[in-house]
Amino acid sequence: MAKIKTAVSTAKTKKTLAKPKGKKPEPMQGVMALALEAAPLSEPMDAYFAKCMEKLGFVPNVLRAYAHDMAKLEAFVAFYNDLMLAPSGLSKLEREMIAVAVSSENKCFYCLTAHGAAVRALSGDPLLGEMMVMNYRVAALTPRQRAMLDFAVLMTNASHEIEERHRQDLRAVGFSDRDIWDIAAVASFFNMSNRMASAVDMRPNDEYHAQARG
Amino acid sequence: MAKIKTAVSTAKTKKTLAKPKGKKPEPMQGVMALALEAAPLSEPMDAYFAKCMEKLGFVPNVLRAYAHDMAKLEAFVAFYNDLMLAPSGLSKLEREMIAVAVSSENKCFYCLTAHGAAVRALSGDPLLGEMMVMNYRVAALTPRQRAMLDFAVLMTNASHEIEERHRQDLRAVGFSDRDIWDIAAVASFFNMSNRMASAVDMRPNDEYHAQARG
Amino acid sequence: MAKIKTAVSTAKTKKTLAKPKGKKPEPMQGVMALALEAAPLSEPMDAYFAKCMEKLGFVPNVLRAYAHDMAKLEAFVAFYNDLMLAPSGLSKLEREMIAVAVSSENKCFYCLTAHGAAVRALSGDPLLGEMMVMNYRVAALTPRQRAMLDFAVLMTNASHEIEERHRQDLRAVGFSDRDIWDIAAVASFFNMSNRMASAVDMRPNDEYHAQARG
Amino acid sequence: MAKIKTAVSTAKTKKTLAKPKGKKPEPMQGVMALALEAAPLSEPMDAYFAKCMEKLGFVPNVLRAYAHDMAKLEAFVAFYNDLMLAPSGLSKLEREMIAVAVSSENKCFYCLTAHGAAVRALSGDPLLGEMMVMNYRVAALTPRQRAMLDFAVLMTNASHEIEERHRQDLRAVGFSDRDIWDIAAVASFFNMSNRMASAVDMRPNDEYHAQARG
Amino acid sequence: MAKIKTAVSTAKTKKTLAKPKGKKPEPMQGVMALALEAAPLSEPMDAYFAKCMEKLGFVPNVLRAYAHDMAKLEAFVAFYNDLMLAPSGLSKLEREMIAVAVSSENKCFYCLTAHGAAVRALSGDPLLGEMMVMNYRVAALTPRQRAMLDFAVLMTNASHEIEERHRQDLRAVGFSDRDIWDIAAVASFFNMSNRMASAVDMRPNDEYHAQARG
Amino acid sequence: MAKIKTAVSTAKTKKTLAKPKGKKPEPMQGVMALALEAAPLSEPMDAYFAKCMEKLGFVPNVLRAYAHDMAKLEAFVAFYNDLMLAPSGLSKLEREMIAVAVSSENKCFYCLTAHGAAVRALSGDPLLGEMMVMNYRVAALTPRQRAMLDFAVLMTNASHEIEERHRQDLRAVGFSDRDIWDIAAVASFFNMSNRMASAVDMRPNDEYHAQARG
Repeated sequence: MAKIKTAVSTAKTKKTLAKPKGKKPEPMQGVMALALEAAPLSEPMDAYFAKCMEKLGFVPNVLRAYAHDMAKLEAFVAFYNDLMLAPSGLSKLEREMIAVAVSSENKCFYCLTAHGAAVRALSGDPLLGEMMVMNYRVAALTPRQRAMLDFAVLMTNASHEIEERHRQDLRAVGFSDRDIWDIAAVASFFNMSNRMASAVDMRPNDEYHAQARG
Repeated sequence: MAKIKTAVSTAKTKKTLAKPKGKKPEPMQGVMALALEAAPLSEPMDAYFAKCMEKLGFVPNVLRAYAHDMAKLEAFVAFYNDLMLAPSGLSKLEREMIAVAVSSENKCFYCLTAHGAAVRALSGDPLLGEMMVMNYRVAALTPRQRAMLDFAVLMTNASHEIEERHRQDLRAVGFSDRDIWDIAAVASFFNMSNRMASAVDMRPNDEYHAQARG
Repeated sequence: MAKIKTAVSTAKTKKTLAKPKGKKPEPMQGVMALALEAAPLSEPMDAYFAKCMEKLGFVPNVLRAYAHDMAKLEAFVAFYNDLMLAPSGLSKLEREMIAVAVSSENKCFYCLTAHGAAVRALSGDPLLGEMMVMNYRVAALTPRQRAMLDFAVLMTNASHEIEERHRQDLRAVGFSDRDIWDIAAVASFFNMSNRMASAVDMRPNDEYHAQARG
Repeated sequence: MAKIKTAVSTAKTKKTLAKPKGKKPEPMQGVMALALEAAPLSEPMDAYFAKCMEKLGFVPNVLRAYAHDMAKLEAFVAFYNDLMLAPSGLSKLEREMIAVAVSSENKCFYCLTAHGAAVRALSGDPLLGEMMVMNYRVAALTPRQRAMLDFAVLMTNASHEIEERHRQDLRAVGFSDRDIWDIAAVASFFNMSNRMASAVDMRPNDEYHAQARG
Repeated sequence: MAKIKTAVSTAKTKKTLAKPKGKKPEPMQGVMALALEAAPLSEPMDAYFAKCMEKLGFVPNVLRAYAHDMAKLEAFVAFYNDLMLAPSGLSKLEREMIAVAVSSENKCFYCLTAHGAAVRALSGDPLLGEMMVMNYRVAALTPRQRAMLDFAVLMTNASHEIEERHRQDLRAVGFSDRDIWDIAAVASFFNMSNRMASAVDMRPNDEYHAQARG
Repeated sequence: MAKIKTAVSTAKTKKTLAKPKGKKPEPMQGVMALALEAAPLSEPMDAYFAKCMEKLGFVPNVLRAYAHDMAKLEAFVAFYNDLMLAPSGLSKLEREMIAVAVSSENKCFYCLTAHGAAVRALSGDPLLGEMMVMNYRVAALTPRQRAMLDFAVLMTNASHEIEERHRQDLRAVGFSDRDIWDIAAVASFFNMSNRMASAVDMRPNDEYHAQARG
C-alpha cells in the first residue's frame, strides 16, 4: 500500500521510542509477557477506559497491552469497534461466533476466553459458547450461520484456496456482498488478534471465566 | 473486548447500510470480487487518495476496496500507517520483509505483489524481493533478520506453540521488547490482510509487477 | 493379537444381534446420533448406574450410549475405571489433564465437556480446566506436568515419531517406566474415546457445563 | 465419566505399585522399551496364554507387555476380544481391514505387522494385506468396504469433522446403525492401540512376518 | 533450463503422436490405468527387456508403462540405472532403503512393493524391508543410515526447510559431498517416481510380493 | 525395477569416484552448496553448453551442478529435454505452468526463478508468471488448464489419494490418456527437481530475474 503519511496517521515521533530513563520496565504481570511501560492515556482513551470500568468493571487486558503507545491503542480501538459494533447485516452475536470459531482453530487462550464469554452473554446460551470454543460443528446452527462459520474457518486454515464458489455458498444462504465483506473482515481480524495475543502471551482478565455461565 | 462505543469509534448509523436505490452494484472490476459501491470520499480520505496519485501514480486497490465505507477505510488507513510507517526499532524494509514472508506462507497474491515490490524498492535489491516471495530461507540474512522472519513465520503457521523461549530467541539477537511487539504486530496484521484479500479476491494494481525490477 | 476366545471374553451370540421386532429404534436423543436400543442392564451395570445417579445425579451419556450391548458396556467400564481410578504414579487430576489436552487436539466436544469439568473439580481451579481445553501451553505447570502433556500431545499428533529420547524426557523429570505406561495408556485411551464420541456424535450431559465453575 | 468404583472395576490396591525389591527390572527385550516386570499370571490369563501357545505357537507381545499388571491385562483382553471376535455385522476380516488401514495412517509397526498378517490369513489374499498396509485406496474393494475404510480413515485423521452426512454415506451402502457403531469402535480402538504401541515401542513377534505370505 | 535441443535429446517427431488408426487402445490391464499402446521396442530396449526376462523372470511393469514411447523409456532407464547402479559411496542397499522410506511417506503402492522386495533381497533381512515400508524409525540403524533416511524423509516432507545445518548433519556422520548428492538424487527420484506411479495407477508385478520373505 | 546394466546405462566405473588429488574442492559458489569439482565435459555436453551460451548467454546452473559427473549430466539432459521439449499434446507453455505451480507448493527458489521466467517468456504475459509463482488459483485459466494444474498440485500434495475419478476429470476437459501421462510426468519431474535443488541449495543464474518482465 501507499507509503504516504496523512492526517489520519500517527503524530508519533522518533522521540517517543526513546528508552525511559531509570529502571527497566517489568513484564506486565497478568497482562502480557513483554516488559513495556504504560504510556499516559490520551484524553479519548482515558474516557474509554473509564467507560470500560463503569460498564464492565474492568479494563480488558488487550487494551492495557496496547496502552504502551497511544497511537497504537487508538488505532486498535477504532478498528475494533467499527468491526464488532458498527451496523452490519451480521448481528453482534454472529460476529462473536466468528471470533470464537476462528480463535478455536488458532487455539488462542485470550480470545477464546474473552469472546467465548461474549457468545455466552449475547446468546444467553452458555452451551453455545462452549461449542464455539470446542468444535463449532456440533452446534445446531441455521444453514446461514453454518455457512458463515465454514467460510470463516476455511479462511483461517486455507485462505489461498478460496474462490468464487465459496462466496457463492454464502450468497446462496442469503448473505449480501456487504455481509460477505463483514464475515471476511471479522474472520481476518481474529486471525490477526489471535496471533498477536499468542506472540506476546496476552492474558485475559479473570472476570471472563465466570461470566454468563447460566 | 469491551462492547462500548467511544469518541474514537465510528459515527456510522444503520442508515448507511441502506441498499443504494436503483441498479445493483457491479463487482469492482480489477479491484475485488464483491459488488460494493464506492462511498463518497471523506475529506481526509480524499486528500489521502490525492497524495497516493501524486506520489505513486495510482490508488492502491486495497484502499479502493475499503472505500465502500468511509469508517472502515479510515480505520484501516490509520491502523496500517501506524504499523508500517511509525517510528520503530524495525526499519521500513524489515517490516516489508515480514509482510512478504508471511504472505508467502498464506499464498496471498495481492500482498505478495504489492509488498514484494516494496521490498525490491526499499532494498534496491530485486533478488531479495523474489526470495521473500519464494522462500525466505534462501536469502543471506543477518541473524537478527533471520530470527525476526522465523518468528513471524512461526506466528503464521503455529501461533499457539509460541512460548517465552521464542521471545528469548528474539532478545538474544538484540531485539527489545518493544521491537518484539512490532514484529508481532506486523506479522499479525498480514495474517489478517492476506485472508481479507483472498476472501474477497482483491487484485493488486498492475503497476506493482514491473516496479523496482532493477 | 490372538484370535482366541476365552473365559474373559464375551458370551454374546449371533442371536443378540437380531433386529428388535416392531418399530425401528429412534436415534438416542441427547445421547448420540445412532438409533440403537438400550439393552436390559445386567446386574453389575444396574448397580453401577444406580451409583452414578446417587453420586453424580445422572448417568453419563457415554454409558447410556454403550448400554445398547451389555458386553461392550461392561468391557468399557472395566477398562475405563482401571485406567482412570486404579492406583498409579499419576494423580487422578493428572490423568484428567491428559484427557483434556488430548481431547483438545482432537476437538472432541463430549470429552472436553466431561473431562474439562473433572479438571475443574479435582483441581479446584476453574481456570486450569479452561486452559486444558483451550491450549495447555498457557498453563503454569510444573516441568513434570508439562513433560507429561507434551508427550501425550505428541502421541496424539505424531505417534510414529516417538523414540527413546522422548521416553527419556519423561524419565528426566522423575517419571518411572510404570508412570510412562500410565501416561501412554491415558493419552491412547482418549485418542480412542474422542474418535468414538465424534463418530457417533455423542453428547455430554448438560450438567457438566456448570460444574465447578468456581 | 463417573468417578465411581464398582464390582467390575479393579481390585488393585496401592500395594501393587510398590517398587519390586532388589534389582531394577530390565527393558522387556523384544517386547517393549519400558522396564516393567511381568506380574504372576492370574488364573484366566494363565489359561489364555496357554491357549495362545496352543493355537498360535506364541503369546502375542502386546499381551506380554500388558502382563505387568493383571487388571490391565484382563481389561484389555476382554475389551479387545469383544471388539474383534464378538458377533457383528462386520466380518472378522472387515474388522482386521479397518485395523490395518488405521494403523497405516499412524505408521504403527506393531499393528501393521500383527494385523497385516491377520488380513492375509483371513482373506487368503496376501496382496490384500499388503494393500491395506501400503495404501488401501489401491485395493479393488466393494463400495461397502470402501465406504467403511474411508470412514475409518477420516476418523483417524479428522474425527472432529465427522457429521451426519458421513454416517449417511455408510447407511447408503447398507450398514445398519449397529454396524456403524462397530466400524467406529474398531477404528477408535486402533487409534488407541497404535499410539500405545508406538509410545512404549512395542515389538511384534517375529512369527507374524512370514505368516500367510501365500 | 535451456530450451535447446541437442544430440542427446529425442529424435521423436510430431508424427509419433498421431493416434493409432483403428480401435482405441485399452487400459494396460495390470500395468496402469492409462490406455496407451506399447510402441515397438527399440533395439537397446529389446535387449534390456530380454535381460530382465532372463534375470528376473519378468519385465517390471514400470518399464512396460514407459514402453508406449521409446524415447521416454530409454531416458528413464538411463537415468534410473545411473542412479541406482552406478558406483557411489552409497551401497545399493542404502539406495533401496532411501527408495522405500521415501515411498512410505508418499504411500506409493508400486514403489513400496518393488523396492521393499529389493531391500529384503539385498539385505537378506525380510524384517528390514517391512520396517522401511511401515516406519523406518523402528529399525536398528547405524547413525549414518539413520541420518541418511532422516534427510531423505525431510526432503520428502519439507524440502524448502533444508539448510546448511542439515547437510552438516550428514557430513558429521561421514558422508562426503558427493554422497550427499547421491542421497539427494535418490530421495528426489522416488519423489518423482512415487507420484508418477500413483498418478497413472501403476501396478507392481505380482512376483514382488513373495520375493525374499525369508 | 530390474537391477540390470544395459547398453544405455552408464559406462562409469569405480575409478571415477576416486577423490581428486591435491586440494579439496570448494563449494560451487553461486551454483550449489556442495563442494564437487566439475568433470571434463564430454563431447555432446560440450556442444550443449556451447549452444546454451549462444542462445541464452549463460549455462543454467542446474547443468553446472550436474556437471561433476558426465553420466549424470547426460542422463538428466536427455530426460529433461524429452519431457519439456518433445512433441506432446501439452504446449511448452503448459508444461512450464505445471513446473511453476508444482514448484510453488514446494517453495523451490531455483525452479520458481528459472521456470517463472519461462512462463513469462513463453506467454508474453509477465503477470501469468507471477500468478503461477504466487497462487495459480488467481489466474484466469481455461477449464482445461485449471484441471491440469489442479491435478499437478494434487499429485504434489497428496499423490496417494489420486484415483480414477481424478483422471476422469482430466478426460472430461479434453485430455487424452497420453496427455495425462505427460501432465503426470512433468508434475512428477518437478517434484524431483524441486527437492534436488533445495537439498543441495542450487542457485538460479541471476539473468532469470529480469527476463521477460514486460
